[in-house]
Amino acid sequence: MSPRPMVRPGGRSARVQKSVHAAVRELVGEVGRDALTVPMVAARAGVTPSTIYRRWGDLQELLSDVAVERLRPEAEPADLGSLRADLDAWAEQFLDEMASPPGRAYIRDALLGDPDGTHAGRCSAYAAEQIDIVLARAVRRGEPVPETELLIDRVVAPIMYRILFRPGRLDAAYARELVTNAVSGEPGTGRR
Amino acid sequence: MSPRPMVRPGGRSARVQKSVHAAVRELVGEVGRDALTVPMVAARAGVTPSTIYRRWGDLQELLSDVAVERLRPEAEPADLGSLRADLDAWAEQFLDEMASPPGRAYIRDALLGDPDGTHAGRCSAYAAEQIDIVLARAVRRGEPVPETELLIDRVVAPIMYRILFRPGRLDAAYARELVTNAVSGEPGTGRR
Repeated sequence: MSPRPMVRPGGRSARVQKSVHAAVRELVGEVGRDALTVPMVAARAGVTPSTIYRRWGDLQELLSDVAVERLRPEAEPADLGSLRADLDAWAEQFLDEMASPPGRAYIRDALLGDPDGTHAGRCSAYAAEQIDIVLARAVRRGEPVPETELLIDRVVAPIMYRILFRPGRLDAAYARELVTNAVSGEPGTGRR
Repeated sequence: MSPRPMVRPGGRSARVQKSVHAAVRELVGEVGRDALTVPMVAARAGVTPSTIYRRWGDLQELLSDVAVERLRPEAEPADLGSLRADLDAWAEQFLDEMASPPGRAYIRDALLGDPDGTHAGRCSAYAAEQIDIVLARAVRRGEPVPETELLIDRVVAPIMYRILFRPGRLDAAYARELVTNAVSGEPGTGRR
């Protein structure tokens, strides 16, 4: 969804991205993010400031790109033997990660430096990919499954909405209630 | 939810807010928001820049406060004679307003200049108040009603999530599908 060209793994572009992202993470830990500047990141990463401005636009877009990368799932959802068990476990973990203080900071950064919505779109695509893995597994087991977009609406959206807009209850029982509503099989759940 | 003291209507504080908000709206129309500065807003509003810094912190927080004010509903939801009709009409209008270009810009501004989440919380409270009006009316008619928080999860959250994170289908039929899921009365819908 990004208008930027694909990054070839191992190419110069990928190496620049890796060193600049690492520099941001280190410097945020050392000096805090309010003191961060593009020249400081460039010096640490061993690139020129203009390389950063050309590729990321400004510091806020760079912080957004780094945040999206931190929100990328590190592993496939666990296989616990049934759709319901897999979705419960995934939803609980997603809620935990997103509602944690670092998760909230990354979501915020991802949205702030994202004038055209492509960074936020990547966050949503990560969640959809994880859900797709769980659903494909359930299909192989012969279980009926809801559609990915329905799980986005009924599980992902309420969690993200409450994190951003409506403080309150965000616990494992809430995650499981949302899953119940997504897999309950009433008319309109879009089973395929 | 704001830590700031209540504003007494008609008092000096309310007059300052009104003139500063009006100045922001006028100047955004005249010079565009990227050219806006606090001294420019102060001059137009007839206050000192320090009045603005003291009350709003910085330009981004002021823009956020103005955006939240623009997101405040102007009227009660229409009374169309039944819960379903009222919710359909309200959800369609909410989707239209939030997904419009100005709506998206206000949501974005509201989130950006909002370090402690109180502005986003006000947006969510406006939606909950509108829903409460619809539900109270249905209770007076003798209709069974779901809980407000369930409507937030099932109608408001998916609309806001898709606006912020997942471009795609945002039309009246989608709004009505969300309402169907909220009022379908299956176990777990939290009827009271």
